[in-house]
Amino acid sequence: MAACGDPGVAVDYDAPLQDTEPDRKTPMQDTHISLAHGNGGRYMRELIDELFARHLANPLLDTRVDAARIELDADRDVFVTTDGFTVKPLEFPGGDIGSLAVHGTVNDLSVAGAVPRYLTLNAYIEEGLEVALLDRLVASLARAARECGVAVVAGDTKVVARGEGGGLYLATTGIGVRRRGIELGMDRVRAGDAVLVSGPVGDHGTAVMLAREQFGLRGDLVSDSGPVLDIAQALLGVEGLRFMRDPTRGGLASVTNELVHATGLSVRLREADVPVRDPVRSVCEMLGYDPYYLACEGRLVAVVAAAAAGDALARMSAAPGGAEAALIGGVEAPQSHARVVLETTLGGERVLEELEDDPLPRIC
Amino acid sequence: MAACGDPGVAVDYDAPLQDTEPDRKTPMQDTHISLAHGNGGRYMRELIDELFARHLANPLLDTRVDAARIELDADRDVFVTTDGFTVKPLEFPGGDIGSLAVHGTVNDLSVAGAVPRYLTLNAYIEEGLEVALLDRLVASLARAARECGVAVVAGDTKVVARGEGGGLYLATTGIGVRRRGIELGMDRVRAGDAVLVSGPVGDHGTAVMLAREQFGLRGDLVSDSGPVLDIAQALLGVEGLRFMRDPTRGGLASVTNELVHATGLSVRLREADVPVRDPVRSVCEMLGYDPYYLACEGRLVAVVAAAAAGDALARMSAAPGGAEAALIGGVEAPQSHARVVLETTLGGERVLEELEDDPLPRIC
Repeated sequence: MAACGDPGVAVDYDAPLQDTEPDRKTPMQDTHISLAHGNGGRYMRELIDELFARHLANPLLDTRVDAARIELDADRDVFVTTDGFTVKPLEFPGGDIGSLAVHGTVNDLSVAGAVPRYLTLNAYIEEGLEVALLDRLVASLARAARECGVAVVAGDTKVVARGEGGGLYLATTGIGVRRRGIELGMDRVRAGDAVLVSGPVGDHGTAVMLAREQFGLRGDLVSDSGPVLDIAQALLGVEGLRFMRDPTRGGLASVTNELVHATGLSVRLREADVPVRDPVRSVCEMLGYDPYYLACEGRLVAVVAAAAAGDALARMSAAPGGAEAALIGGVEAPQSHARVVLETTLGGERVLEELEDDPLPRIC
Repeated sequence: MAACGDPGVAVDYDAPLQDTEPDRKTPMQDTHISLAHGNGGRYMRELIDELFARHLANPLLDTRVDAARIELDADRDVFVTTDGFTVKPLEFPGGDIGSLAVHGTVNDLSVAGAVPRYLTLNAYIEEGLEVALLDRLVASLARAARECGVAVVAGDTKVVARGEGGGLYLATTGIGVRRRGIELGMDRVRAGDAVLVSGPVGDHGTAVMLAREQFGLRGDLVSDSGPVLDIAQALLGVEGLRFMRDPTRGGLASVTNELVHATGLSVRLREADVPVRDPVRSVCEMLGYDPYYLACEGRLVAVVAAAAAGDALARMSAAPGGAEAALIGGVEAPQSHARVVLETTLGGERVLEELEDDPLPRIC
């Protein structure tokens, strides 16, 4: 890919552009990654050429140049974001680190109201990683990028010594465009505004936790990893849209606490209205986790003017991935302290505190 | 910083913009990084706010948003590049991983003929890293960015478990602009062209190797880590400029081998003309390394039409950092095989093969 490797890497890669998935099997002869795959020479060239470039082929990806030229609409605002991915296990029900690295960055642009256009990719590969696994993960990343309409235009790979990595760490930087005149931000949130979420919370966090901890629990639990672009674009039509965010690390509780920090206002959520899947609820009860603190990777939280709540909910529900959208609470003037309050189904209240230490607090 | 953390992080960071260095001491109370600094809650907010944002303050860096809006000239071509950094030790004579992460990406844009404008930053911090060290590294990164005229507009931090990282890994993605009409690339290289380098090779590789291996060797050896932007911009005025590259991983030998791969032409270098500092040469002789394969981090290799060699050398020599620039060889039609040939000072020839395996080949 463009600028792959410090020195760039000389590859004779000139494959026809493809929108379909390439052959699954890498022509690389090595079965495991060695430090030589990171030294700038022939092995690294093979890794880039026969694995990364094979999956990521697109018109702008040229592994022989230092920097990729990209096209941006002259009449649009340009946005950039970046995110690192260290999830374990590398593959989990409903996704893997490859698709996640696309969805995470696509979603950060989406909630800014932008349409993602380009990605850059960094890979830190631990010596000893199985090449077949790496191949699946990069294939998955490429598939997710195609589905989201983004092109990976530059990349870099580093091989780190055994015991100095986590198998594979990825980072993606995204560039997107937004039509001019859109204003979104936490500073636009007012007391009285409504809070909505695009679907059930805690799926990703629970699915990964189970896959990692091997509790022996099985079921229908899959990550919600996916793009929120369609939902975000649908919401841009709402008069009174204040702010959107994807509740990833730290979950719904952290996004709403951020809102409290930034605005000095309180957020009130209704437990009965926040969608949580039954298996997620069961696992949380069994293991002592709170689903409101668990990461989602395909959900969007929106704050809109009260009068626009109905319109927003209708648009979210009609968008792909938004069928289970819900109006879950509102923003209000703080009583003594600004905070996030959950009205429980039993009629009580509990405060969703800002996350302090791992492990996640047992309240659920 | 913008989009810092999956969920973004709510920080009340609103410090005045500063072009000068902030206080050296972080107000963070913790002395070492723990996993809690990566969980999206209060500790992570402190890390971002009191360490990263403190050093990286600039008008576009807002830690409360998902994606940063950037301004690009409508009449310029836009370039993007990315690079990962895993150097050890994290600090070495002449630089550190922070400044290196800026120079590496700035230089990849520079050799494409672009002026770097924006950076995004990913940090993978290993649990247990000393906060004071992290603070120095981020301060150094911020200083290098200021010196290069680039703004860090988005960032993300991940904390990885002890034994699953290398202290600190960084990735930077750079966005730059180039005036329209400039065409550069290995495909423009022709037999007869001249090859130049902007200064001595092997300084960075040798300095880091000595710092890492603790051979007990000391001396004047410092990394050449630095920007090549001025030199690259000066070369854009040369009629007949074909191609520029910074010889990082794999060094001068790898860049020229890349050229051979891409063009089918041979490259002939004259050992007597390739600048290598005496201490670098001594260390290489002692330890069995070849300076032509060692990374530079502040050098530029240029290929120009033969008739333009004098002009190119004059411009390089006059630019900051280019005082030791040299005309080191040329491109020629291959005899039997296209390859990189070094004319030795003794009148012999040796082939600089493409790097295969670590450790570096003993030839020097």
